[in-house]
Amino acid sequence: MSKEITSREQDYSQWYNDLILKGSLADYSAVRGCMVIKPYGFALWENMRDVLDRMFKETGHQNAYFPLFIPKSLFEAEEKNAEGFAKECAVVTHYRLKTDPDNKGKLIVDPEARLEEELVVRPTSEAIIWNTYKSWIQSYRDLPILVNQWANVVRWEMRTRLFLRTAEFLWQEGHTAHATKEEAVEETVKMLDVYADFVENWMAVPVIKGVKTPNERFAGAEDTYCIEAMMQDGKALQAGTSHFLGQNFAKAFDVKFSDRNNKLEYVWATSWGVSTRLIGALVMAHSDDDGLILPPRIAPIQVVIVPIYKGEDQKAKIDEHVQQLVAELKALGITVKYDDNDNTRPGWKFAEYEMKGVPVRIALGLRDLENNVAEVARRDTKEKNTVSLDGLSAYIKQLLEDIQQNIFNKAKQFRDERITPANSWDEFINLLDTKGGFISAHWDGTGETEEKIKELTKATIRCIPLNNVQEEGSCILTGKPSTQRVLFARAY
Amino acid sequence: MSKEITSREQDYSQWYNDLILKGSLADYSAVRGCMVIKPYGFALWENMRDVLDRMFKETGHQNAYFPLFIPKSLFEAEEKNAEGFAKECAVVTHYRLKTDPDNKGKLIVDPEARLEEELVVRPTSEAIIWNTYKSWIQSYRDLPILVNQWANVVRWEMRTRLFLRTAEFLWQEGHTAHATKEEAVEETVKMLDVYADFVENWMAVPVIKGVKTPNERFAGAEDTYCIEAMMQDGKALQAGTSHFLGQNFAKAFDVKFSDRNNKLEYVWATSWGVSTRLIGALVMAHSDDDGLILPPRIAPIQVVIVPIYKGEDQKAKIDEHVQQLVAELKALGITVKYDDNDNTRPGWKFAEYEMKGVPVRIALGLRDLENNVAEVARRDTKEKNTVSLDGLSAYIKQLLEDIQQNIFNKAKQFRDERITPANSWDEFINLLDTKGGFISAHWDGTGETEEKIKELTKATIRCIPLNNVQEEGSCILTGKPSTQRVLFARAY
Repeated sequence: MSKEITSREQDYSQWYNDLILKGSLADYSAVRGCMVIKPYGFALWENMRDVLDRMFKETGHQNAYFPLFIPKSLFEAEEKNAEGFAKECAVVTHYRLKTDPDNKGKLIVDPEARLEEELVVRPTSEAIIWNTYKSWIQSYRDLPILVNQWANVVRWEMRTRLFLRTAEFLWQEGHTAHATKEEAVEETVKMLDVYADFVENWMAVPVIKGVKTPNERFAGAEDTYCIEAMMQDGKALQAGTSHFLGQNFAKAFDVKFSDRNNKLEYVWATSWGVSTRLIGALVMAHSDDDGLILPPRIAPIQVVIVPIYKGEDQKAKIDEHVQQLVAELKALGITVKYDDNDNTRPGWKFAEYEMKGVPVRIALGLRDLENNVAEVARRDTKEKNTVSLDGLSAYIKQLLEDIQQNIFNKAKQFRDERITPANSWDEFINLLDTKGGFISAHWDGTGETEEKIKELTKATIRCIPLNNVQEEGSCILTGKPSTQRVLFARAY
Repeated sequence: MSKEITSREQDYSQWYNDLILKGSLADYSAVRGCMVIKPYGFALWENMRDVLDRMFKETGHQNAYFPLFIPKSLFEAEEKNAEGFAKECAVVTHYRLKTDPDNKGKLIVDPEARLEEELVVRPTSEAIIWNTYKSWIQSYRDLPILVNQWANVVRWEMRTRLFLRTAEFLWQEGHTAHATKEEAVEETVKMLDVYADFVENWMAVPVIKGVKTPNERFAGAEDTYCIEAMMQDGKALQAGTSHFLGQNFAKAFDVKFSDRNNKLEYVWATSWGVSTRLIGALVMAHSDDDGLILPPRIAPIQVVIVPIYKGEDQKAKIDEHVQQLVAELKALGITVKYDDNDNTRPGWKFAEYEMKGVPVRIALGLRDLENNVAEVARRDTKEKNTVSLDGLSAYIKQLLEDIQQNIFNKAKQFRDERITPANSWDEFINLLDTKGGFISAHWDGTGETEEKIKELTKATIRCIPLNNVQEEGSCILTGKPSTQRVLFARAY
């Protein structure tokens, strides 16, 4: 397989696909719109999942598991949610195949095994979960319920992209139940903060926290909070959402509790989720024309060691030194791979780990050993340094932290340079077509104007930033009065 | 909710359901045959999963993720596998619902959104995985592939039981590809050993390792290895299987590799899996009429501390001591819960944690503090001891190990007493109807006889134990010659 990849300038979209495929993160599959997550990609997802899972548990949440299928009658109970997802859901109608009588060896759907009620493959689990919460909640003593689920979900998207938009994807979905509106809103914001913390401090991707406009809300939510990230082509990417669901699902599924005064009240709800889409964001935020650049804190392999030798004698001497180095690095909690595979040459290995975004590469030859040094190359800046073997592991540990910080700073500078105010329609259009990025502009607050702008430019309101400055202005399209700027962008 | 449970003697089956529901492991759901795994049950599964995952990685395996759906044409490619699973598979036929024109607010399947090819919800993933391996494998250098997947699968069982047999369940499925038959067989046996190690040393359930007869093989396998456990009602339970798949899937999906001599050969395969069914085995192997008994090594809560007090002053003094104890226990890697919930009384809490199978309960009152002691109760034997607060955490650590060992020994003694030889049909029938358990008997080696015995007695051949003693004898049913005994039992 050729490891050559298309450059960003040449074809950004192809560059992205090349990275995913040649970086061994994922593969296309035989199922329309579904992908195979390869071991290297899955190890990355495991690292992300483990950090998030710890964060959820530290904020008092527990995991549980709810059915994959949602009976149609439950699915349609919350009307807006149903309307939002009905047009892209996979539906199970039968529970058996049988041999084709006209063609032995082939199977057909058995018409006698039709389900009485169709089952929707979950696109999101509010319906099945709130139907369950009904039997878990009687009194204020049963609240709050702070539950999260790691699961696969299916949304029958027509245009799919590896990681960014796939018919099936992996995610987590938190579903919490509360006695008061205040507590539910607090939870919604708290989990948005957890997401922002994770994406910025682990994935090294800076995000803007905000609230969606009504047009862009999750189907069935009262308010959708989001974190928005900026990709290298100037398009925005929604990296996570946290929804305040009000009492919509409690009403749809009749979930009430008796409060401290013995009065029956509907329960307040939130839901929040991030998915394997984050891997797409990660790839597009940091990588370059030579391959992936992964942040050390979540990289499946943090350090790779490549021996440079001729013959078994030289190799034995290098092995001996590497063994000790590997032990030292592991003791510092660093994930290290010693690639002494004899079938490939050092140059090939260098290109391979560059492609895979391994943050640090150590090359070690016999002359290096004699000089008590190693060559250390960092993936992000491509700098190479000759470093003494004495104290090398401590040096590497610090280097990994520097790389993490550098990747974040670089992405943040890029992003900050792409938040631009626009004060006229011409300026707005011009910015979109040249620089891209987030455009901070006044909007008259109506869904009609938002929709019109989207039709004209493909730009959407990504969010109304939290703690937004209030200022008087006039709508970029209609000229009507406005009290604050919002962030527009073309988006994934 | 009443915490009273049916006794085993009264109704074993109801006792089991009571434990699952009242022990907060799982709940029924609105979806036929599917269950909700509650937070306490899921925490147990997480502990089991994490140990197994570590074992898989230590034996060189990596995780990956393959699509939930299998196109019908792939599903039917390996004929025996297809035949085995076709009669119980969920089939997706449509990708959209639409508003019912006759009944607004209701949804119907959109007949215009019929899939060109039906998708089977995976009952097992050999087909989709081997179709993928085709593009991953060209040369012997690409082998072995040692991949595992944690996933949900669906088998449309007609009679379901919480954990033991559900339409959807969680499991892991290993799928490996090898250059030689020997290596594949070695892998099959190695993973069986991993399962036996896990089930015995972590779940404290003794197992018998063996091979299935052709009748009981996995659909598409050349050989199915299994571990069989014994439940308290004398019925056996298959706790895990490891399949040598020969070249069946390589042939069905045309997966060849060029060997060292540049000759094209079909690839050899294995697959192996354990599921949430293990939780059913765990519950039925150890628990008693007062609730669950969980082995310390996988219990979600290993130690619960219950304060006994009147008034805030007393509580404050107890809290102070408990804080230090909790810190000490945590430092020893022990999972501890301090239940100082004011809404429930100590007696209620005692019953609750007994029901939930928490291995050790510490009760602490003011008089205990004055005497520098605590009351320590173990769940397995129900012994209570007054133990000095000095060195209490070390005592608890040792106690947890003792409990783990005791639970295993007890289950092993029970199981060993239920492996009985039978040398005549009358003896066989009599044993089945009185003592149950494994019956070691001669069998003529034919599928017909095996099937006949199953029809007559509902007993199946659980396995031919590995390293079975060879001895001459005659078949329990037909009297025909036999060279070894096999293990029969009624089974879950």
